Amino acid sequence: MGPGPSDVSPRVLKALSRPTVGHLDPYFLKLLDETQSMLREVFGTANALTLPISATGSAGMETCFVNLLEPNDQALICRNGVFGGRMAEVARRCSAEVTVVDAPWGRAIDPDDVANAAKDGSFKVLALVHAETSTGVLQDLSPFRAIADACGALLVVDAVTSLGGVAVDVDRMGIDAVYSGTQKCLSCPPGLSPVSFSERARNVLENRKTPIQSWYFDLTLIGRYFGTERVYHHTAPVNMVYALHESLRLVLEEGLDARYRRHRDQAQALWAGLEQLGIALPVESSARLPPLTLARIPEGADDRAVRAQLLDNHGLEIGGGLGEFAGKAWRIGLMGASSTPRHVELCLGALEEALG
Amino acid sequence: MGPGPSDVSPRVLKALSRPTVGHLDPYFLKLLDETQSMLREVFGTANALTLPISATGSAGMETCFVNLLEPNDQALICRNGVFGGRMAEVARRCSAEVTVVDAPWGRAIDPDDVANAAKDGSFKVLALVHAETSTGVLQDLSPFRAIADACGALLVVDAVTSLGGVAVDVDRMGIDAVYSGTQKCLSCPPGLSPVSFSERARNVLENRKTPIQSWYFDLTLIGRYFGTERVYHHTAPVNMVYALHESLRLVLEEGLDARYRRHRDQAQALWAGLEQLGIALPVESSARLPPLTLARIPEGADDRAVRAQLLDNHGLEIGGGLGEFAGKAWRIGLMGASSTPRHVELCLGALEEALG
Repeated sequence: MGPGPSDVSPRVLKALSRPTVGHLDPYFLKLLDETQSMLREVFGTANALTLPISATGSAGMETCFVNLLEPNDQALICRNGVFGGRMAEVARRCSAEVTVVDAPWGRAIDPDDVANAAKDGSFKVLALVHAETSTGVLQDLSPFRAIADACGALLVVDAVTSLGGVAVDVDRMGIDAVYSGTQKCLSCPPGLSPVSFSERARNVLENRKTPIQSWYFDLTLIGRYFGTERVYHHTAPVNMVYALHESLRLVLEEGLDARYRRHRDQAQALWAGLEQLGIALPVESSARLPPLTLARIPEGADDRAVRAQLLDNHGLEIGGGLGEFAGKAWRIGLMGASSTPRHVELCLGALEEALG
Repeated sequence: MGPGPSDVSPRVLKALSRPTVGHLDPYFLKLLDETQSMLREVFGTANALTLPISATGSAGMETCFVNLLEPNDQALICRNGVFGGRMAEVARRCSAEVTVVDAPWGRAIDPDDVANAAKDGSFKVLALVHAETSTGVLQDLSPFRAIADACGALLVVDAVTSLGGVAVDVDRMGIDAVYSGTQKCLSCPPGLSPVSFSERARNVLENRKTPIQSWYFDLTLIGRYFGTERVYHHTAPVNMVYALHESLRLVLEEGLDARYRRHRDQAQALWAGLEQLGIALPVESSARLPPLTLARIPEGADDRAVRAQLLDNHGLEIGGGLGEFAGKAWRIGLMGASSTPRHVELCLGALEEALG
């Protein structure tokens, strides 16, 4: 119950351990097609270029930026936690000129601040985090398409901790490039990063003037393996694709709306229970992220000792705080298969015991 | 029995499907330490910076080049197949100036050609492929440390198809940066790329003037998670590390010398059997790579039809040719768990049937 990896269903672990076949085996290619199709459904998109990158979630971030940015391009990046900060760092390493819009950690980005920063400029990308894993803040994405349009930008979104637990609605929100991870609300082991690019983003990609600095993350090459040509790029991580395929089947069997409702319901039960224990929730309720809760460490409690006690006595992992919240807050995940009444009760009971 | 992935032992598949724990769980960190230690043994090195990159083999190539090269650095790259060509491409994307030394596909690189190309220049890296997966050529690495020294270069080696099947001897050969994949002679599913950097290479890394263009492959950051600090970089692909750990245990249980001998013995049996079937071996015997054999498609045989028949009738995959050998040769792998008398017999029998 930390910030991921979340619990993995036995069905997914069983799929993971199926015999490894070749990355051009017809059986595997069929699974790959089905995986793309299910990813589109979960992302809420019809984007053809929707696929899992063969590396963990942060590699999805890098994939978005290296493909879309060229040297000296302008990038407008929103930062209210670790992952917004990482976006700015990755964009700078693409030799882009980065303008950052900050909000305090634990608060959502104010769209007016972004509109102000955007209004006198022309930007190649406007990037923000849908679900900040470092602070448990959920960002309402609906104002940002219009802001991106006003400054001519592609809209890039980090959905690592939302995909499969909170609606991402890629097409409805007008998102141009989005990335996620498998080990959060999809409840698959870490190792792949689903991404999706709109037609507008693909167009930018196909009209670059300079080469994409990363060969491994070059979507013009990767897209040819995932298309009908099946041109070899790199050896696909076959067993991880088995696992992602099965975890997406589980997501769609449950149904997206039911799954999002479950994440909200369990989070509300956790929030109420924490407050009853006298544990404050630094994120205001309107911006709270159901899959990940920031909980203030009570006065007098020892951060590491409590977490060690949870792990030793209950086999329960919760996350430490990051950045401004290091040593001051815990991060409690209720993601995918880990978002159940049993998890909420276990966590509240174990915390009560440890703090008692 | 294609160019990888190879067969995976049930023990490794079972390890792969163990429950996913957190990437900072003490149990996982212990496995990670053991994995690094076993990798050092298989690479033949004492290098501290020896670890699995969280992506497939080609990402290991990119890791070596993005960490060592800065814009306008000189790179001397040997090319006698797909993977040498890929090295040149990746180095160019790092804005390096690339000088290529070519040899015909299916032949080893001539060290004299490299010495000639090196003699008037100063190079940051000299890079070559130990085991060319596209052609089945094994390169004798012993002349190259002296050539690298003569032009001031770091020696970078692709050991994707040799590690665990042919001795790589990193320290004895004076290799500064080396990368491999898990799905060849280690017989682990694809998804990780073991790399190792010498002290000299680390020194170059720590004294860079420009930022490393990739955040995901930045070894100065990744090294802090693998060190004693355990600073979070990205979420490690936990289950894939379980599998690599188990596959390395299998390698060391067998013993490196016994394993290399097994690969040689099975390859020699395959080569003799192919020649008896009238199938020519384009690579001369002194440069043949035991884990991967290039076999000329006999006159009148239909490449795709034969391969489809092998797959349909025997569940047997062999690889098609690449580049100059596309449609002209097959690639037959005898890697790790797939290098057994049973595999040799199955392949020879199935080919005899299909060609009969």
